[in-house]
Amino acid sequence: MATLPSVSYSITVRLELDGHGSAVSSLTSAVERVGGIVTALDVRSSEHDRIRIDVTCAARDTDHAKSIVDSLGSIRGVVVHKVSDRTFLLHLGGKIEVSSKVPLRNRDELSMAYTPGVARVSQAIAANPEDARRLTIKRNSVAVVTDGSAVLGLGNIGPEAAMPVMEGKAALFKRFADIDAWPIALDTQDTDEIVRAVEMIAPGFGGVNLEDISAPRCFEVESRLRESLDIPVFHDDQHGTAIVVLAALRNALRVVGKQLEHVRIAMSGAGAAGTAILKLLLHAGAKNVVVCDISGAVHSGRDDLDENLAWIAEHTNPDGYSGDLRGAVAGADVFIGVSAPNVLTGPDVAEMASDAVIFALANPDPEVDPEVAHLHASVVATGRSDYPNQINNVLVFPGVFRGLLDAQSRSVDSGMMLAAARALADTVSDEELGPHYVIPSVFHSDVAQSVAAAVRSAAQHERQDTLGDDRLDDAPRR
Amino acid sequence: MATLPSVSYSITVRLELDGHGSAVSSLTSAVERVGGIVTALDVRSSEHDRIRIDVTCAARDTDHAKSIVDSLGSIRGVVVHKVSDRTFLLHLGGKIEVSSKVPLRNRDELSMAYTPGVARVSQAIAANPEDARRLTIKRNSVAVVTDGSAVLGLGNIGPEAAMPVMEGKAALFKRFADIDAWPIALDTQDTDEIVRAVEMIAPGFGGVNLEDISAPRCFEVESRLRESLDIPVFHDDQHGTAIVVLAALRNALRVVGKQLEHVRIAMSGAGAAGTAILKLLLHAGAKNVVVCDISGAVHSGRDDLDENLAWIAEHTNPDGYSGDLRGAVAGADVFIGVSAPNVLTGPDVAEMASDAVIFALANPDPEVDPEVAHLHASVVATGRSDYPNQINNVLVFPGVFRGLLDAQSRSVDSGMMLAAARALADTVSDEELGPHYVIPSVFHSDVAQSVAAAVRSAAQHERQDTLGDDRLDDAPRR
Repeated sequence: MATLPSVSYSITVRLELDGHGSAVSSLTSAVERVGGIVTALDVRSSEHDRIRIDVTCAARDTDHAKSIVDSLGSIRGVVVHKVSDRTFLLHLGGKIEVSSKVPLRNRDELSMAYTPGVARVSQAIAANPEDARRLTIKRNSVAVVTDGSAVLGLGNIGPEAAMPVMEGKAALFKRFADIDAWPIALDTQDTDEIVRAVEMIAPGFGGVNLEDISAPRCFEVESRLRESLDIPVFHDDQHGTAIVVLAALRNALRVVGKQLEHVRIAMSGAGAAGTAILKLLLHAGAKNVVVCDISGAVHSGRDDLDENLAWIAEHTNPDGYSGDLRGAVAGADVFIGVSAPNVLTGPDVAEMASDAVIFALANPDPEVDPEVAHLHASVVATGRSDYPNQINNVLVFPGVFRGLLDAQSRSVDSGMMLAAARALADTVSDEELGPHYVIPSVFHSDVAQSVAAAVRSAAQHERQDTLGDDRLDDAPRR
Repeated sequence: MATLPSVSYSITVRLELDGHGSAVSSLTSAVERVGGIVTALDVRSSEHDRIRIDVTCAARDTDHAKSIVDSLGSIRGVVVHKVSDRTFLLHLGGKIEVSSKVPLRNRDELSMAYTPGVARVSQAIAANPEDARRLTIKRNSVAVVTDGSAVLGLGNIGPEAAMPVMEGKAALFKRFADIDAWPIALDTQDTDEIVRAVEMIAPGFGGVNLEDISAPRCFEVESRLRESLDIPVFHDDQHGTAIVVLAALRNALRVVGKQLEHVRIAMSGAGAAGTAILKLLLHAGAKNVVVCDISGAVHSGRDDLDENLAWIAEHTNPDGYSGDLRGAVAGADVFIGVSAPNVLTGPDVAEMASDAVIFALANPDPEVDPEVAHLHASVVATGRSDYPNQINNVLVFPGVFRGLLDAQSRSVDSGMMLAAARALADTVSDEELGPHYVIPSVFHSDVAQSVAAAVRSAAQHERQDTLGDDRLDDAPRR
């Protein structure tokens, strides 16, 4: 589970050195000697026997980057000028921008896109508010809303520091589903205020993607917004993760030839993601799940259960198991971890049923070393990109919102999420399916489109059902 | 003051007709007979002696467009198929979109723009919040905030119907100043809620452009936000208008050879725009202003003064004039109207001082017919694009925010606004200046840049002064 050098810690070192010596040839070995990887050597200028070179290399982390620079600087005749961090360079000025879709070259164009022509469009929407979904950006826009309270694995770092993540999310929305998402980082962590803020900004958006809001507030924020708004509200950390996990689990069970209805599932983690995964698994037909948190198995005999844990106790653990995680995992067919690093060891997972499935999703360090897990399980998945079977929300949220927006859906429900999971699972064909390929890559070109089509179709059925009910209500009664 | 056909009411009529007859040649005359103007004739197909043609023409308004279609349909052998409204076509799906500034083609790029690389950027901002202005879109983004309560001349049409105007504004921000503006249409018209909503969404923005919020709430919203936020808050309906008026007035007075300090100014309108114009005129040195509202001149003897009118009574009308608008205009050097159509007649403005200046800015119908005004005044300006000297906020808000963002200004004050007005006025050279050219066109290529440079410079002085004060505070005292 050693961390490898990665471009996410990539640096570019500008050096000056003597062109006559052997320094140039020693640059690469100086980087490699301390475990770095040279990804590019660019000569910027060469004059008076002095050469300027940009050495770009991948490092493991900040300290490692520093040791690479030191190693380069220790070469005789080398002067280190400037060290640039490629990730920071990429972020200068932010990652998204606004573009105009209309030409504004002359007076005629101005008078259609702005005053006086725009007044007629505004009047049309005032007369028929539904036209906002046709004549404004509401048709294709999503608010990516956070309060900065649970950002990645970094915790409560606040709204400003959350912005790079939200901007990245917006860029992914565009890249994978052509959706116009705008980050809204809220300067409050009060549940009532978050709810009210989102309600107030909602008119200009066709959907709300809640992001990195800590549990248990995220549950209340989401459920109250779903109640009050007529656009879909989707907490990606919960439901995005749940959909990918369900899709991967479907395929993993195809690999080992087991049925979701019959397997015993042990889960570690009852936070936002864990709860959403559990609920979707139950919707999909799972019957035997034991959820553990830091105090062991969640069961109705515990006296420390909050509202969320009480719900879990009521709907899981049919045998009333009251031991620790290790005991829950023993004999289980499936382990799903969304909790903390290294809570299980090789001997623990060796006790699982034959043909076990292990999803160890804590990031960056999984619940059990994936290489160790592989010694005992048939299918292993993690949240990491440097192992097979990466559970990554990017597989889901672009397609889900594409489908919701295309259907002009007012809501999102578990039927649509099950459809999304099925569509995602089905992008892996029988021929492709295998222990190391239960879930496609985020760059698989069919994913967003397949998920979108499934969600759109489910949402349209939903709307037709609702309209159907309305029509019945209007019909004469006997 | 008759309304002329305009592309903002442009329609495209798809017709089918007999290619052998004389119908084609009669299309243009059929449109012109009812007062329309043909701007394009596009043959779409021609087969079996039948021709399909798209006739695009400018109309005055919706009824006029209908009469043009009827006139075309009455030609023998012409079948009208489909009538498209070009302004509505242009608005389909909204006018702005989000673009990614970073490539996301492969895993390496994903790992820098999103996880895991983005975590380091978030950590850097958590450690030093000021870095948000360097590493996020805060550096270049503006929230265009409305509650939909006073949209154009349409009144209180609500947030959804306001969106096309806000999107147009965002498109103009991009077009003229390369600023990333996002529309936020609020589902509330409560002052406290508007203030709190803007405070909550502020972390991701470098500035706030308030738009189309009705008076007197707009005054309180703006002043409270200026107090609580560390980014500039600018109500464009107030200050954008005020800056353009002051710039145009400076130049108009250059034309007639009078001084702002010495002229007598009569104003009609004490709403958001009127109040802001008045305050900026006083800051610029005007000494003798009488403001009239619907009840006549504002003076301290009136018992119907709200907080805003009381302020006006205290700071204007040095002679205590208590009559009506007509009497205030008599003998005045300058009239500025931001009120209602046709409140003044030719005989009224004939009573003004010689070389009078008339800014009749009510839209679409000015306070006095500009053609009549020209019989008596040396310089006439309106808010309309079909007369010379258009007072248009587009001349100001892009440059003002460009300057504020470039200076990373925390606020905007009247010093910066005076600088903006001076820069805008100075884009008209002595050689160009004349009664019909006191203010440049919105498409004048120097405007935004000149205004931005002036505001940036004023804002930077401001920040240095503030820093200077801080240093003094830290210095030992005697």
